Amino acid sequence: MLSTTARTRLGRSKERAAADRDDLYEVLDTGLICHLGVVTDGYPMVVPTGYGRVGDTLYLHGSTGARSLRAAGDREVCVTVTHLDGIVLARSVFHHSVNYRSAIVYGRARVVTDEEERIAGLRALTERLAPGQWDYARRPDRKELAATAVLALSLEEASVKIRCGAPSDEEADYALPVWAGVLPLVTAWGEPVPDPALPDGIGIPVHIRDRK
Amino acid sequence: MLSTTARTRLGRSKERAAADRDDLYEVLDTGLICHLGVVTDGYPMVVPTGYGRVGDTLYLHGSTGARSLRAAGDREVCVTVTHLDGIVLARSVFHHSVNYRSAIVYGRARVVTDEEERIAGLRALTERLAPGQWDYARRPDRKELAATAVLALSLEEASVKIRCGAPSDEEADYALPVWAGVLPLVTAWGEPVPDPALPDGIGIPVHIRDRK
Repeated sequence: MLSTTARTRLGRSKERAAADRDDLYEVLDTGLICHLGVVTDGYPMVVPTGYGRVGDTLYLHGSTGARSLRAAGDREVCVTVTHLDGIVLARSVFHHSVNYRSAIVYGRARVVTDEEERIAGLRALTERLAPGQWDYARRPDRKELAATAVLALSLEEASVKIRCGAPSDEEADYALPVWAGVLPLVTAWGEPVPDPALPDGIGIPVHIRDRK
Repeated sequence: MLSTTARTRLGRSKERAAADRDDLYEVLDTGLICHLGVVTDGYPMVVPTGYGRVGDTLYLHGSTGARSLRAAGDREVCVTVTHLDGIVLARSVFHHSVNYRSAIVYGRARVVTDEEERIAGLRALTERLAPGQWDYARRPDRKELAATAVLALSLEEASVKIRCGAPSDEEADYALPVWAGVLPLVTAWGEPVPDPALPDGIGIPVHIRDRK
């Protein structure tokens, strides 16, 4: 089980929270999508979506008509980013676990209205998902900007949880003839697949071909 | 943006919902963790956690003391499983997207009390994360079972969203000298890492070594 909220933990240990800040940035800046939690009509709703970070602000975006965005604007939200690094295979079923890094951010999502900040947020979103594309692809025009809602979420109330390394088994179980260890999960970029509609002669840009 | 809830879509099109059922199973049965959304004190909370499926029931578990579990038991929850398959690089920033498969399940989480169902749920959870381990590792004893809460969630109100293939650009943008296509994201198992405490002579079982 990965969970239990970290909301309280930050309250209990401010030193830990401060020490976690670099970890928080690392988890956010290596993730691709988050899971956005909102409350609609009293019910929880969790949707996957992109995000970007500028300093201590997280940006989310979406169609101005999207229900999750309407539910998130000027409302309390929870944004969770999770990296799954491996399966922890213990000697007992009970101590099976996963190695992971996750960040949870709580706060009120602010609807961004300042055009400069909106564009900075969209740029951060684009560059998180597809670094180099803000300067390479066609930028949003006035009509596209008008159709896009941008939300900002402060990283003030955020926390990080990390589990790594070998399983923790019951003392008596170490004598069992059972293999234990970690099965790592590895994520990598595959070969870029060109759009079939692409005309001849347009090569793959280096920032896409050599993406880390 | 991946989102907008599918909650309404199922209401609008029951045929589509039926057609999605195999997709729903496929998304759930190839995922490793879900993001569990609950409402606590009126606030949304989203935590990553394991899950398992038996027929049309999803099982979640956790420490009986975990705050997220307490908030989920006999309460409305939302469980989302997302596979990120690639980054969709369009000719315009606006049409950038991701290829993904996601399942969203809504419902009231039932606290499982029947011991047989509790064990079936834990088995499904274990086998989702680590196939073969239920029969290989030491099973939970009475004390461990007592410390574990098991929740059941019906798949009755569930939906699937899938995006795949090339970008969809504005007609005029196809003339731009901009590369477009998909950068696939590939996930694979790495080499198993033995627990340093493992005695000599315990080989890696085939179900771990050859995991698909």
